[in-house]
Amino acid sequence: METSLKAGDCRSFCPVANALDVLGDRWSLLVIRDLMFMKKHEFGEFMQGPERIATNILTDRLHCLQECGIIDCRPHPSHKKKKLYYLTPKGKALLPVLVELIIWGGTYRASPQMPKAQFSKISRNPKKFMQSVLRDLQAWESGNL
Amino acid sequence: METSLKAGDCRSFCPVANALDVLGDRWSLLVIRDLMFMKKHEFGEFMQGPERIATNILTDRLHCLQECGIIDCRPHPSHKKKKLYYLTPKGKALLPVLVELIIWGGTYRASPQMPKAQFSKISRNPKKFMQSVLRDLQAWESGNL
Repeated sequence: METSLKAGDCRSFCPVANALDVLGDRWSLLVIRDLMFMKKHEFGEFMQGPERIATNILTDRLHCLQECGIIDCRPHPSHKKKKLYYLTPKGKALLPVLVELIIWGGTYRASPQMPKAQFSKISRNPKKFMQSVLRDLQAWESGNL
Repeated sequence: METSLKAGDCRSFCPVANALDVLGDRWSLLVIRDLMFMKKHEFGEFMQGPERIATNILTDRLHCLQECGIIDCRPHPSHKKKKLYYLTPKGKALLPVLVELIIWGGTYRASPQMPKAQFSKISRNPKKFMQSVLRDLQAWESGNL
């Protein structure tokens, strides 16, 4: 795996390249997906995804995303040793990127197990879907942050 | 660097994960960016980007993107040893993903050298920008394919 650049480094004038310096791997956007859509906020919850992320990769990605200001964390209210992870505004601003990846992936690389009804709902009205995601995130935040 | 899965493999029911299996690295979307926005169609042209992609990574990425049906190539009309690369419909369908990465990267990870006027134009009216990109691609195709 290539070493990620530090949060402030820019390898190019191009915003796509600078976005990929923190997001351009097979796992970062899946952690962000879990925080955005799956109501997952704990290390152990991220580990339980169908993609079976390895512990060391998850540790590294969480560190990198936090350093870059995409996620943050606070002490878990009921488990002293656990943390609660959540998206910052910079992280929540990745919602349209994720939605376009859902639409492209669901159109051109769909697995037979993909929930088709949910995919149709998202691709027919992405704006409405994004509004409901942001509402859910806000509701979680007002109860936990 | 992790080995990419083959074009047909799916590691998850999730369309984001399946999209990242072919796009989740620091270079694939930059090659697609060059084909989409920069009017680059030759191996040597991809090499000349500000990010300085290595020859072996470029060779690998072009092979993988072609195997996955995102790009294709034809013999170069004036250089026997060269190829002309171009986006397939599946590749052109990544335009909204790239535009959202431009908007996020330009908002949260902008380099001081980013062309700001062009960024404002794109983020103010992404639909209009996408239409003009697709028109330009079509014009190139009708002269070259």
